[in-house]
Parts: sequence; structure tokens; C-alpha cells
Amino acid sequence: MTVELICVGTELLLGNIVNTNAAYMSEKCALLGLSMYYQSVVGDNAGRLKGLLETAKGRSDIIILCGGLGPTQDDLTKETAAAVMGLPLVEDKKAREDLKRHLRKLQRPITENNWKQALVPERSIVLYNANGTAPGMIIEGEKNTMILLPGPPNELIPMFENQVYPYLHERQPEIICSKMIKLCGIGESMAETEILDLIEGQSNPTIATYAKTGEVHLRLTARAATREAALALLKPMEEELYRRFGNKVYTDREEVTLEEAVAALLKEHHMTVTTAESCTGGLLAGRLVNVPGISEQFKEGYITYSNEAKEKLLGVSHETLAAYGAVSRETALEMARGCKEAAGADIGIGITGIAGPDGGTPEKPVGLVYIGCCCRDRSYVKKCGFTGNRSKVRESSVANALTLLREAILNEVES
Amino acid sequence: MTVELICVGTELLLGNIVNTNAAYMSEKCALLGLSMYYQSVVGDNAGRLKGLLETAKGRSDIIILCGGLGPTQDDLTKETAAAVMGLPLVEDKKAREDLKRHLRKLQRPITENNWKQALVPERSIVLYNANGTAPGMIIEGEKNTMILLPGPPNELIPMFENQVYPYLHERQPEIICSKMIKLCGIGESMAETEILDLIEGQSNPTIATYAKTGEVHLRLTARAATREAALALLKPMEEELYRRFGNKVYTDREEVTLEEAVAALLKEHHMTVTTAESCTGGLLAGRLVNVPGISEQFKEGYITYSNEAKEKLLGVSHETLAAYGAVSRETALEMARGCKEAAGADIGIGITGIAGPDGGTPEKPVGLVYIGCCCRDRSYVKKCGFTGNRSKVRESSVANALTLLREAILNEVES
Repeated sequence: MTVELICVGTELLLGNIVNTNAAYMSEKCALLGLSMYYQSVVGDNAGRLKGLLETAKGRSDIIILCGGLGPTQDDLTKETAAAVMGLPLVEDKKAREDLKRHLRKLQRPITENNWKQALVPERSIVLYNANGTAPGMIIEGEKNTMILLPGPPNELIPMFENQVYPYLHERQPEIICSKMIKLCGIGESMAETEILDLIEGQSNPTIATYAKTGEVHLRLTARAATREAALALLKPMEEELYRRFGNKVYTDREEVTLEEAVAALLKEHHMTVTTAESCTGGLLAGRLVNVPGISEQFKEGYITYSNEAKEKLLGVSHETLAAYGAVSRETALEMARGCKEAAGADIGIGITGIAGPDGGTPEKPVGLVYIGCCCRDRSYVKKCGFTGNRSKVRESSVANALTLLREAILNEVES
Repeated sequence: MTVELICVGTELLLGNIVNTNAAYMSEKCALLGLSMYYQSVVGDNAGRLKGLLETAKGRSDIIILCGGLGPTQDDLTKETAAAVMGLPLVEDKKAREDLKRHLRKLQRPITENNWKQALVPERSIVLYNANGTAPGMIIEGEKNTMILLPGPPNELIPMFENQVYPYLHERQPEIICSKMIKLCGIGESMAETEILDLIEGQSNPTIATYAKTGEVHLRLTARAATREAALALLKPMEEELYRRFGNKVYTDREEVTLEEAVAALLKEHHMTVTTAESCTGGLLAGRLVNVPGISEQFKEGYITYSNEAKEKLLGVSHETLAAYGAVSRETALEMARGCKEAAGADIGIGITGIAGPDGGTPEKPVGLVYIGCCCRDRSYVKKCGFTGNRSKVRESSVANALTLLREAILNEVES
């Protein structure tokens, strides 16, 4: 089955917003095993949208539209889609009640144009909207199905997740199962090289690699007649990936982030961590605090941007700074040790580097970062040479620090 | 003149990446006064791309393609565009030399398929690529112009900025001048209300609002026959915005961020700042350290996620924590004062709040955040009620803390 996306909104054509809806829905459609060959963006213009819909009807089974369902005169998606499908608009009673309730809650005056949102094409399946005023709808025609969704991601995503995905899943004769294997401590090209034979020989399950900052995600997708059969197809591939990547796999759950995996390890082994950051200036701590409930494992952290702060707060020795410089293996290690002692934590992480754009030298170029880690009695230092701008160097540093932290914990608990 | 975007890449159709290139180029084209009515995404498939190009030729003057210029067999954009324009591919000498130099620098073996990247459609304008192997090109046909660009943003953006933008600018008979007025400390709907008459009465210059976290950006765009005339059109509108928003305007330069504006103020007035963060866990410091050269103004910061750390590192009193709780006006103020004293800085900022998803109560719901600021002898506390998930609450807290910091500095130096 083929699917096509049409996003409606002048704000996309003007570049006011990035089309994250398209990426979200594309990934979900790929996961469902639907073939997508085209995506389009068109403004709030009935004539151009009609032309695009006629073209889409000729080439795709399912056409997903998003945006243009609101109350204003600009919002034309529903009217245009209904006209192309040859259906009149009728009022949906529940949609009208929902709308009334929603607007009351917002304590906004209900202007006349709002009621337009309770109109739906005749015989369509209404997708009630718990997070906004405009319902979505599914229009089943003879040859094509059109699915209309609201544009705001906080309305579209739950509607897609809870109503559209199950609908599409049911219409797919095959069952699709997918698993996300997330790796850290390995680059994308190295990860790809390790599994080149699997990528080249893929059929069912398929395997796709996604490069993230400091991480590589591998999505396995299997199709079969039953869920059990699909899971059975996934299993040997999953095991093979665990065999090849070992400890570099930090999770096989789609929703788990690297900081969550590290926080879970800390919790499991009753360990506490603290941070001392120079060039990353708090971003590592910021990522740890992304994890709700991290307070038992992470109580405090230090940002020591200046040399004086490194000495004062972490006890980095003046001699070390003078002899090796702030960006050195020795300083990173003393930062890690210093924060560990100051906070009374099991583990201390120190990051020092040159994020750029200035401050680089031939010996210590922009992108050079040292990450120190003291985990109880053991110490580690990782030297990194990152590319990219200031932000990219800092983000890469944080991802690599989380990876080193994870390795140190694993090393500690396995020995 | 009309322009249309076609992004080529299966990774977009699979949702592996978000199409930030489209947003970037759309904004630039809007700035140039070009009318964009369509954007499309198509996979690495010559037949479908050819169909799309034929359609685009019939409806748009300029067609910008990005992606699919690389060395592999999948990369078909150039071949397809040249065929549609009826032009043979010929080798460009400088492109070949660039390619050789670039690959040598990467110390990669040069495989035969790489040389394909030095081929360009006959008589096209070659856009040499300083950041990658594939050059871009401009193909001027009788009725249409096609502009082909590499897909990776770090190659596309400088090429667009330095070569495509000036080319398009020259072809626009009118001169377009634009100014970005950035506001903080005011919400989007409030900002819009303040200038509703300007928005409704807009013609030349136009005015567009962009909501950012904790900020609102206003873009003014004027068209005229000369640059002087366009700037003259902008001036009264700019002055009107300054009149209406006063100190809430933190910059009128497109490239300046809020943290850069704050850092510039600190530098100008020789003031230093430090931070004490609870729920934001280092993100405020992280944003300050986004600014290269901030080290004279920001030397150290504290992450005090636990109550013990607030007492130990900042000297927040046990009684305050017991009587008012960690999330309170009193604690925020003691955090600000405590870090200011510990760091010996002119200004201390303390942030404490409930970022969620858990930890909220009827009295102190998720999203409640107090931001304290001690600036020399004056103290300020701001109570905020943010909506959204954990990340959104934390980002909003940071943006509001930067705004409070800015207000405190302005208050100090103006009195």
C-alpha cells in the first residue's frame, strides 16, 4: 500500500516553522510497512491544494493531510478534501459538544466561525481531538483514503498515535514489529561496517541505521502474518546485534534515552555521580537532570569555566594547570577526582576542552576535549577530537561523557 | 518571481531526518521576496524525480533541488535535472581539482565513482563546495532556472548564503531589506496585541512574528528600487517598535542570541555573573557558555539539585527550606545570594522549580518555577507558571532567567 503526505500551511512555505510533522509521520508509516514516495507542502490555497489532491489520488492509496482544519477563513483543507471526494459537509454532534466543552475550558468567547470545526465530510470517521478544537477525520473513498489531521504537533501526535496508527495497522494485511537497538561509544561508519553483511543481505527483518550525536540507533523491522511470527523473525537478528556490539548496546527500548539508561544503571547499583564542567558549562548536568527522579543519584554539580574556579571548587592544582594547561589529560582527571571528593559521590566526571571558534592552537586545536572519570578507585581519561561548530563540539562532549560514565559503571560492577 | 523546492532523499521519506533545509531555504526565499507555492520531497528515484521536475517547470520560475549529488549510484539528481533541461554532462576542471584536494585531506582512498561529482551540466554555473565533495550548480534554461545543492546542511547553508542568495538577490528586480527585532520578557499573544494595528495595516514593510521559547521575534521586510529606499521604509516601523516595546527589544541583529545580548551587557558594564540551578540542572550555565569569550563574565556555576547541596554550596538556611520548601520565593532568593557570595560575582541567579512530570501538588503544581536574582545590592524574584513537558518547563525557565538577568543589569546601570 502506498501513502503520501500533504502538509498544508503558509507558515511552512515561509520557513516560519520546521516540518517536524512530516518526519514524525514518515517514520511511523515506514514502521507500518507503507511505501511513501511523495511528500508535499502547499499553502492555504484551495486551488493549489485541489490540484495536488487530484494528482495524489492518481498515485497513492492513502493521502494524509495535516494542517488547515482550524476555524479561520484561511483553513480550507477539509472543504477542499470533501469537494475532491465529492462529499457534502455535515455537522458531527459529538464534535460540536467537544468543541463547546473545550472552548469553555479555555474561557474564550465562542465566535461564530468556531462551529465550522464541527463539520465533517459525510460518512467520514471522526477522530476526536482531546488536545484542541479541530477534530481529524478519515474519508474512505472507492480507491483512496484521505486522512485529515490538525497541524499543531501536540494535537497531531496523540491523534496519530492513538487513532491513525491503529487504523492503518489494521488495514495492513501484514503485522509489522519493530525494535530499536541503541548504541553508544561507536561511530556510525564503524557501526555500519560491523553489520555491512546484515545490511546488504537484509530482507525481512530490515535494518536501518540512524546517526545521532554520539550515538547510533538501529531499527529492525519484521513483517509477518502474526505478531509471534514477526517477533520470531526479529529475535535472531537482535541476538546477532547483541553478539556483535555487546556492551555498546545501551537499550533496546525505543523511548529510553542515553541519560535514562545511565541513570537506571546508577540506581540499580546504588551509585551517585557528580560533574565538573568547563567547555560544556553545565550541559552534562543538564542532560542528567532530564531524567525525572535522578535526585538520589545526582545531587550537585560544578561549572568551573575559569582556572581559578577549577582550583577553588575542585582543588585542581595550580602546578597541573601551569604545566599541562587547562585542556589536558591531567586537568580532566583532577577535575573528576576533585568533584567526586567535594560532592562525596561515587563517581566524578570532568570535562575540559576547546569548543571554539577561537582558542585553538596547532597542538591543541578546536574540538580537542578531555573527559576524565573517577569511579571509586579507578580512573579513566578519554581524549576526543570533535569536528563541527561550538554547539556540536559541546553536544558531542556530553554524549561521550555519558558513554564514559556508563563504561565506568559497567566496569566497576562487572569486576 | 516564483520558486519551488524539491528535496531529494529516501531518508526524508523514511523520517530518518527532519527537513531543516526546507525551512532554512524557505525563510531565505521569503526574505528575497520570492513567492513559494510548493515544496516536495521525493526519494532517490529518477522516474519520480523527472515527473516532479516536469511539473515544476510548468509552474515555477526557479526550481531549487537539494540532495542526491553524491558519488553513489543512488545519487541521481544532477543526471535527471540535466536530462530534463536537455543538457549533456561535462567535466569541470576546477571541480575535479577541488575534489582531489578534498579527498586527499580526508586521507580516504579515491574510488572511481568519486569522479562523477566533477561532472556538471554543460554551460551551468558551478557552485564550488568548500565543505564537501559535491559542487552545486545553477542551470539557466530558457524559461526556468534550476539550482542544485548538496543535502548536508553544513554544505548547503554556506553555499546558499555565499553563492545562491547573492545570485537570487541580483535577479530580483527589487531590493529587499529585512530587520529582525528580538523581544524578551513578553509573550507572543501580548506582543501581537501590542502591534495588531501594524500587522493589520501592513503592506511595505511587512511584519511577521515568530514565537520562540521565552522570546518573540519580529521580522520587518521592505521592498524598494534601491537599498536606501528600502531602509528608509524600514526606519519608521523600527522606531515605532522600539517606542512600543522599549527595553523588551534585546537586539535588532538577526544573528544575536539572548545569551549573547546578555553577555554583551555584562561585558560593557564590567559585571560578573554566577548561577545556582536546581530544576534546570546546568542549562542556564550551558546557555551562557554558548557565548564564546564569556570567561571574563562567567567563571563558575553551581548545580544544587538536592536540598543538602543548596545548604552546603550556597548556604541556603535549613530553616528556610523547612519552612517554605525548596520551591519557594525565599529559597530562590537565598540560592541567588548564596552563589553570588560563593563565587564573588556581581550577580547571582538562582532557579528552583517543579519541572515534572511528578512532584506537583495543588499548592505547588508542575511548572511552578521561582527565579531569584541578586544584583549587587538589589534583589528580585520572579514567580513563573509554565506549561508543557519537563524539557519545555526547563527551557522556559532558562529563557526567563536570562530575561531577569538582563532586566537586573539594565536596572542597575540605569539607576
